[in-house]
Amino acid sequence: MKRVLVVGGGFAGLNVARGLRRVRDLEVTLVDRRNHHLFQPLLYQVAMAGLSPAEIAAPIRSLLSRQRNARVRQESVRRVSLAEGWIETQRGLRHAYDTLVLAPGAVDSYFGHPEWSAHAPGLKSLDQALEIRRRVLHAYEQAELATDPQRRKELLTFAVVGGGPTGVELAGALGEMSRFTLAKDFREIDPKLARVLLIEAGPRILPAFPEKLAARATRDLEALGVQVWTSSPVTHVDEKGIDLGNERVAAATVLWAAGVRASPLLASLGVPLDRQGRVEVEPDLSLPGHPNVFVLGDAASFAGPDDVPLPGVAPVAIQQGRYVARRIRDELRGGSPAQPKPFRYRDRGQMATIGRKRAVAETGGLRFGGFFAWWLWLVVHIFFLVGFKNRLFVVMQWAWAYLAFYRGARLIVERDLDEAETG
Amino acid sequence: MKRVLVVGGGFAGLNVARGLRRVRDLEVTLVDRRNHHLFQPLLYQVAMAGLSPAEIAAPIRSLLSRQRNARVRQESVRRVSLAEGWIETQRGLRHAYDTLVLAPGAVDSYFGHPEWSAHAPGLKSLDQALEIRRRVLHAYEQAELATDPQRRKELLTFAVVGGGPTGVELAGALGEMSRFTLAKDFREIDPKLARVLLIEAGPRILPAFPEKLAARATRDLEALGVQVWTSSPVTHVDEKGIDLGNERVAAATVLWAAGVRASPLLASLGVPLDRQGRVEVEPDLSLPGHPNVFVLGDAASFAGPDDVPLPGVAPVAIQQGRYVARRIRDELRGGSPAQPKPFRYRDRGQMATIGRKRAVAETGGLRFGGFFAWWLWLVVHIFFLVGFKNRLFVVMQWAWAYLAFYRGARLIVERDLDEAETG
Repeated sequence: MKRVLVVGGGFAGLNVARGLRRVRDLEVTLVDRRNHHLFQPLLYQVAMAGLSPAEIAAPIRSLLSRQRNARVRQESVRRVSLAEGWIETQRGLRHAYDTLVLAPGAVDSYFGHPEWSAHAPGLKSLDQALEIRRRVLHAYEQAELATDPQRRKELLTFAVVGGGPTGVELAGALGEMSRFTLAKDFREIDPKLARVLLIEAGPRILPAFPEKLAARATRDLEALGVQVWTSSPVTHVDEKGIDLGNERVAAATVLWAAGVRASPLLASLGVPLDRQGRVEVEPDLSLPGHPNVFVLGDAASFAGPDDVPLPGVAPVAIQQGRYVARRIRDELRGGSPAQPKPFRYRDRGQMATIGRKRAVAETGGLRFGGFFAWWLWLVVHIFFLVGFKNRLFVVMQWAWAYLAFYRGARLIVERDLDEAETG
Repeated sequence: MKRVLVVGGGFAGLNVARGLRRVRDLEVTLVDRRNHHLFQPLLYQVAMAGLSPAEIAAPIRSLLSRQRNARVRQESVRRVSLAEGWIETQRGLRHAYDTLVLAPGAVDSYFGHPEWSAHAPGLKSLDQALEIRRRVLHAYEQAELATDPQRRKELLTFAVVGGGPTGVELAGALGEMSRFTLAKDFREIDPKLARVLLIEAGPRILPAFPEKLAARATRDLEALGVQVWTSSPVTHVDEKGIDLGNERVAAATVLWAAGVRASPLLASLGVPLDRQGRVEVEPDLSLPGHPNVFVLGDAASFAGPDDVPLPGVAPVAIQQGRYVARRIRDELRGGSPAQPKPFRYRDRGQMATIGRKRAVAETGGLRFGGFFAWWLWLVVHIFFLVGFKNRLFVVMQWAWAYLAFYRGARLIVERDLDEAETG
């Protein structure tokens, strides 16, 4: 009975486990510190109160409940011993493996300033999404109560740091929310006057996209009232705002979409990591010198076209997961060749959505923006959503939001108002 | 411009505010520490992962956004000065009123043992519901990991304290969840073997219901694997379980549905309160000696038939809210008689649901149980749900859950696994 241990229930890990569902005499154990698989591309919608957590996440258990050879353990993995072939969990329990698949994902990176994280939450987990929602909605509530105009302006300034797809989507949704969703809700303040800043260190937003599309996205963002500040590296973040070199922006709400690094778990491997903490893997995604250990998803640095590492997006993780499952199946059949066919990423393009009506997309040489791109984005994303139920509800929820300009999930769930304010 | 100040956005307060929507030269300010109105009768469904928060709650702002004479302030009220006619919020701000409506609701009561609350959360807020969900799902996850059979039994024992409607609904949903929803999800444990205890101090559950219906409910609960322990007053609660006199039950999860008391805010009024901290109000729900101050909902002790105070249920709060709105309107028209028509509660009956298929109901002398009662319960509750969208989604969500035995919201949202465990 071979033991395959999969660390991480994201797109990569889940696809490995599912790809092994028909294999006999195999025990697949999926370990994740959370109990749910998360459809990260729509996480910003939870943060902006457009969707509820249950609509973009599904319990890993229920996803694998029919897979007889799979078991799920909700544990947090602390270290890996490649020499002795086990992993150790936060409880100190050790699980031995014959084949290890590491897909622990990535965490927010604050460029050596972890102290910024308290003032500028990132967007990697449901919990963070709900925290961002809490902060944004609280800022409006407090602005409504504020008497000092200076303070009010501070509360109505939202700074999104990082001009990648996540930052663009957050800023777009924020702009739209203040322009439309909240417009009628307040009496003392006019949410339309909220300032949404998208702050990018580089010369332009969406660096991974063609220049034309980035320009298009900028125009679309500005149409939603978002100010796009490029070439503006953030030099300091605190609870009152951010510094851009010698400039100071007073913002009660700062959101972090500026960068991620691979899970700290990888450090325990004792292998060389790249600048973003990723493992440089072999062409077959295995660990150099360890053919029975695979690293994939955001944790792996795999050289793509012109040796640029593949981006940390869902399609890469999904394809890598399927590839590794196939590798393991071949291995078991004993028919694995001395030189396994290397992993090759089939790039189907990339997209970013801006608000409820626009997006930019690039696929197979085609590039387009605007409404059609948005629909394409919508269809593709809902298609990828795990579980029919979720797809169904997301479509309906969106159709509703689209028709009614209504944010169904516009709720602040908190221990206590006072506590939340100190938070 | 008359200022009507409403404290509390529950059924009572919201109905007062809405009842004043057509009144001119009136400023209605609704103050609530939370930003949402909550459909409490379905809160147990959020706790049991059957519904998402957004499906049973709606932002107070959006509910009142079209009501021109209404404003909403998310603040927590600390004290009231009847003499000077103002309320004070946690920020120390004071708001003056011409007419004050106090509908602050109730909080869990631990019979002088506040220290129990950490080990036995109640079910009054979304946050508590999600905390209960977290604990229940964690208990299963940890049982799956546990190696010691004693510990495993502890983790799979769920004690619900209090045999009123809330306790019955929680216990029923728990029994059903372990019997059906989770049955296929685990490998090491059999969720069907989970012990669900419904513990009531009195001689029978559902004391407010006729004896026959209580007996029927007991049978239905037992059919779902719930053990009903009556005449079992709880004498101690800690993180490992509960004491019933000289008996000891080891339970990792204890839920509190044993009692509530009116909001502590009322103590600041300096008027006599009853044993449950409620204000004994005049026949027109006004405060004795203060015709411009009304107390309603769970905060008011209003003598019903045979002088038993009306129960703290939604219909009472709704009818009282509408009554007070009418009183205020009459007042403004100047046409208020020396002796205003007293409030009279039109009792349309009561229901409690047991699991996904059964309920007990009593209305206008009619009494029934089983499937039909459940459907009646479902229809009535969804009918009362605030906002068409919510109704729509709840129906669909339930239809789905009913057909698929699937708990869509079965998610644990948490800061961090380890943190959650220490919690």
